[in-house]
Amino acid sequence: MARAYNFNAGPATLPEEVLLKAQKEFLDFEGSHMSVMELSHRSKEYSKVHDKASALLRELMEIPPDYEILFLQGGASLQFSMVPMNLLDRNHGASYILTGSWSEKALKEAKKVGPVEIAASTKESGYHAIPPLEDIHWKQETSYVHLTSNNTIYGTQWQEYPQTGQVPLIADMSSDILSKKIDVSRFGLIYAGAQKNLGPSGVTVVIIRKDLIKHDDSLPTMLSYETHANSKSLYNTPPTLAIYLLSLVLEWAKDQGGVSQIEKNNQQKAKLIYDAIDESNGFYTGHASLESRSHMNITFTLPSSELTEKFLQEAGDAGFIGLSGHRSVGGCRASIYNAVPVEHCLILAEFMKKFQKTNS
Amino acid sequence: MARAYNFNAGPATLPEEVLLKAQKEFLDFEGSHMSVMELSHRSKEYSKVHDKASALLRELMEIPPDYEILFLQGGASLQFSMVPMNLLDRNHGASYILTGSWSEKALKEAKKVGPVEIAASTKESGYHAIPPLEDIHWKQETSYVHLTSNNTIYGTQWQEYPQTGQVPLIADMSSDILSKKIDVSRFGLIYAGAQKNLGPSGVTVVIIRKDLIKHDDSLPTMLSYETHANSKSLYNTPPTLAIYLLSLVLEWAKDQGGVSQIEKNNQQKAKLIYDAIDESNGFYTGHASLESRSHMNITFTLPSSELTEKFLQEAGDAGFIGLSGHRSVGGCRASIYNAVPVEHCLILAEFMKKFQKTNS
Repeated sequence: MARAYNFNAGPATLPEEVLLKAQKEFLDFEGSHMSVMELSHRSKEYSKVHDKASALLRELMEIPPDYEILFLQGGASLQFSMVPMNLLDRNHGASYILTGSWSEKALKEAKKVGPVEIAASTKESGYHAIPPLEDIHWKQETSYVHLTSNNTIYGTQWQEYPQTGQVPLIADMSSDILSKKIDVSRFGLIYAGAQKNLGPSGVTVVIIRKDLIKHDDSLPTMLSYETHANSKSLYNTPPTLAIYLLSLVLEWAKDQGGVSQIEKNNQQKAKLIYDAIDESNGFYTGHASLESRSHMNITFTLPSSELTEKFLQEAGDAGFIGLSGHRSVGGCRASIYNAVPVEHCLILAEFMKKFQKTNS
Repeated sequence: MARAYNFNAGPATLPEEVLLKAQKEFLDFEGSHMSVMELSHRSKEYSKVHDKASALLRELMEIPPDYEILFLQGGASLQFSMVPMNLLDRNHGASYILTGSWSEKALKEAKKVGPVEIAASTKESGYHAIPPLEDIHWKQETSYVHLTSNNTIYGTQWQEYPQTGQVPLIADMSSDILSKKIDVSRFGLIYAGAQKNLGPSGVTVVIIRKDLIKHDDSLPTMLSYETHANSKSLYNTPPTLAIYLLSLVLEWAKDQGGVSQIEKNNQQKAKLIYDAIDESNGFYTGHASLESRSHMNITFTLPSSELTEKFLQEAGDAGFIGLSGHRSVGGCRASIYNAVPVEHCLILAEFMKKFQKTNS
């Protein structure tokens, strides 16, 4: 069975090996005569799955022992609220770096909790770039500095993170977690919806430095990081099927050679498509500034909206999925998360060249 | 492949037909060459799934048009907070009926939001019963009356609901939704985690009367019912795989003959096991009062803790899963949600009789 050329921005393609394994044991998980989703979340069998997902993520991302790994629900959108509810000191406020719609949404939720400042923004230039590190400023006593590590809509990605010293750096890594090596110890908290690089939608990973986990009885129990840290993410029934699939994706990532090999693959994949743009003599125009280009979401337009339309139409006819830009910005976007095969990127690059030849 | 005798309290057994169908199309949903969880949540293909789940639930439960159906995340535990955050008027407070641990947890979260009163409680008698309707009292101006329709831990279930008139009645139906006919128009809001009668864990169904959906900018966006009602539960990426499985479970329920036939099956299943208790001359003792017995969770003990232990041991050896009582109360519990086959209940009843014969 051929797999679709799936360039969806998320939910996105998953490794075929993961789907085949899950399919095979769908009615009989490890000889239990039950599906993994029919196991009690308090059972030994499920605990193994849950713990394996956590241990593999720790190994792959080299997460230090003074960090907790939580499996939550509600997506990054709920983290937009949980982060300030748990970490924003109303006397000191918090600092947000705006690099796109998702950081704006994070800021909007923080404003409901306490004072915020904008540490930097590239909104005026249409979010085509990540701000230079020297242009980012925050109050010394701020509760934290928040950034979005990769901007799915605009196709930009941080290449280097600000040094925030004693101030916790918090990152929404929904769209580039596990795609390249990062030094977790530079961050106070990292969060990510799973549906791009980690698994299906329905589970959110939070990696939090333990000293940032505080007791606060006034918070809704489910919105307190302490609740989930104290119960190993088993305070209430977790999304067991999604966590199981996450564990399979992490196994697959390890089999690929871990994050450093995945990073190389992603560089190769991105180069194939960026080269098709850069060698097109202006037929394709990338949205992102060169120095801010994302290796996860490649955004581009054609010389006219008619040609963009025609490109998307013919790409769809040729079996490419998900190449339309986000409804808020239009144009084209190829999302090439970890599970998108190199071969599919090659086929897309060839398609782009052929389309250019017959349409310029 | 034989299926396990799965009496888990949740996550629980799912219909074999559902698992087989999901397995079959796991890598190729309706000719898309993609798994359903690889579809964009904004795609036509996924929209069909999403809308089908909603339409089937409306049809099966006969949900009137002035109610919205929402698919959320976070389980009933997050609803414990969302209900008061959205509906508790701090000037009037809210009223809670306590029938077990889950209603206590709901009350605890409401207390963080505003004043609460206890409209009735059977805590003193060990939660062995649902309070008689005439013993339930609430202030006329209360924001709502909250109850837990079925108590998984104690094995009790409401047979008849209080008439609350103009006051919205709110029910946590996590463990008996879709198990029997109910008149939705009697309720202001119904919520249920899916992992007992509706599907896998990771999706929560909320059925809310439209006039109760209010605009409140101070709420975290993700915790406002208005957000999800306005966006057809697509404000952010929903748990698409869990909603797809929910749609298959609902199809299965319809194929069974709908809720009235499912209710009859559940009565038959419960009778098999309650008869084994009642005809045991006191060898098995039910926890719940006769008039409050649950058709979903049957709780019982044996003459001594040694015999209870031996029963659970031998039941485990015989292939029964999930018969231990909740860790907070001990004893035995058979959870017989919609997808547990009559045959499995018959086999359990026979096992109970045989065990009694050789141990009394």
